[in-house]
Amino acid sequence: MYFYKNEFMNKADIQLSPDDRGYYFGDGIYEVFRVYQGQIYEQEAHLQRLQRTASEVRLTLPFTLHRIGQILTELVDKNKLLEGTVYMQITRGEAPRAHPFPAQAEPIMLAYCTEVPRPVATIHNGIKAITFADIRWLRCDLKTLNLLPNVMAKQAALDHGVQEVVLHREGTVTECSASNVMMIKDGALYTHPANHLILHGITRAVVLRLAHSLEIPVKEEAFTTEQLLAADEAFITGTTVEITPILEVDGHAIGAGTPGAFTRKLQEEFVRTFS
Amino acid sequence: MYFYKNEFMNKADIQLSPDDRGYYFGDGIYEVFRVYQGQIYEQEAHLQRLQRTASEVRLTLPFTLHRIGQILTELVDKNKLLEGTVYMQITRGEAPRAHPFPAQAEPIMLAYCTEVPRPVATIHNGIKAITFADIRWLRCDLKTLNLLPNVMAKQAALDHGVQEVVLHREGTVTECSASNVMMIKDGALYTHPANHLILHGITRAVVLRLAHSLEIPVKEEAFTTEQLLAADEAFITGTTVEITPILEVDGHAIGAGTPGAFTRKLQEEFVRTFS
Repeated sequence: MYFYKNEFMNKADIQLSPDDRGYYFGDGIYEVFRVYQGQIYEQEAHLQRLQRTASEVRLTLPFTLHRIGQILTELVDKNKLLEGTVYMQITRGEAPRAHPFPAQAEPIMLAYCTEVPRPVATIHNGIKAITFADIRWLRCDLKTLNLLPNVMAKQAALDHGVQEVVLHREGTVTECSASNVMMIKDGALYTHPANHLILHGITRAVVLRLAHSLEIPVKEEAFTTEQLLAADEAFITGTTVEITPILEVDGHAIGAGTPGAFTRKLQEEFVRTFS
Repeated sequence: MYFYKNEFMNKADIQLSPDDRGYYFGDGIYEVFRVYQGQIYEQEAHLQRLQRTASEVRLTLPFTLHRIGQILTELVDKNKLLEGTVYMQITRGEAPRAHPFPAQAEPIMLAYCTEVPRPVATIHNGIKAITFADIRWLRCDLKTLNLLPNVMAKQAALDHGVQEVVLHREGTVTECSASNVMMIKDGALYTHPANHLILHGITRAVVLRLAHSLEIPVKEEAFTTEQLLAADEAFITGTTVEITPILEVDGHAIGAGTPGAFTRKLQEEFVRTFS
């Protein structure tokens, strides 16, 4: 069961128009929510981010945030989803192809659920990554449908036989293809400040709160790829990856090359936030 | 009559899947062709650019370039189009949403015609523009469906009561929202080199050839917004705008504030290339 425009319907009954500006321009925004035990995790934070992105790209939401929250909850219930994700996007609507905002178009919402188990093995074992040039636009804080550079980056990782890229702008680490990246050095946690160069991850915010409560010093400062290679621990954070250790970058072990103690402690605390 | 996937069909019969990667990621490429007197203008140059973009984003074209050319010609004929445009896009295909390239998906081609008269009044009278920060990704030479920054830029122009933006990176002029920009200074023609920061316009190339044949010195060198304001003449080039004079930038007249002699000469020669 999907939600499309104004109603719940079967996927097969969705009639997307080629004139949907999502299709011609990627002119739309999105969110991915995690569902644990049938509950949408950090729903309010995701909705607030949706609102912010909408406002920055000047897209009027088709419903109030409250109503969107209700629709997503209904979607989870109708699909009897216990563990998985809810994907939703809103495009600027249907109009003959032309760059300017259309005068009349109604924004179009699409949402659906997917059963996705927690990637417990990967979260436990960790991943390898390569560094990769961050060539994206300068509003990476906006969660829009213009995701081709992220797609290309993720594919580059797989082609190199690793799971993720660590993006950097001339040596300064920003984030990963669809997650934030953090490192531990001398007992402190470092991550790129939440400015226009990175997505302001919901899991990123949760982890920073957990670090504060564990009295781990948090430094929202950019670091270089060299500093990352010299880190004691590193991990990515994201809605589906949660807190996943990075064991190796460009073939160099991070710390001991195994998930570190701070990472493990944060993982333990993170699980407590939804269980 | 549209072309979709493998056949000609009515627009109303097109069944786009929400799983089309064009919709989730803008994971696709496109071209817009001009049709004059029922003929596709510079078809081979557009097709070569399509091939180059496809190769750079690692998308396999669903047909040979020759066959794509045939399809577009058939489309023009079936629609009895005399003057207008052919829009075509190719996405990476349908697959459940995930960043990596899908293993099995077939690229999907969509193409259609639109009757569009030559914008003769605007070409004659010229337009006004504002400068605007170019915040796009670093592969602007690729004609992909990730066009949200172009949309936002174009809309900013309209909101300022002008027709176009002149994009610049920290003061260095790149191009416009969907066209290239050129200026005349002391009898020479200046335009940004065709590197990764601008779209390699087909009309741009035609105009440079015309300038050579008119023995106008051509300097493919970047210039600043200040140099643009001090230019003798300026104009944009593009498939639908052809050669359109810029009369004013940020409220400052360019040259005499009227279309200049070099611009007029190039316009005259340009019309000869298709009539």
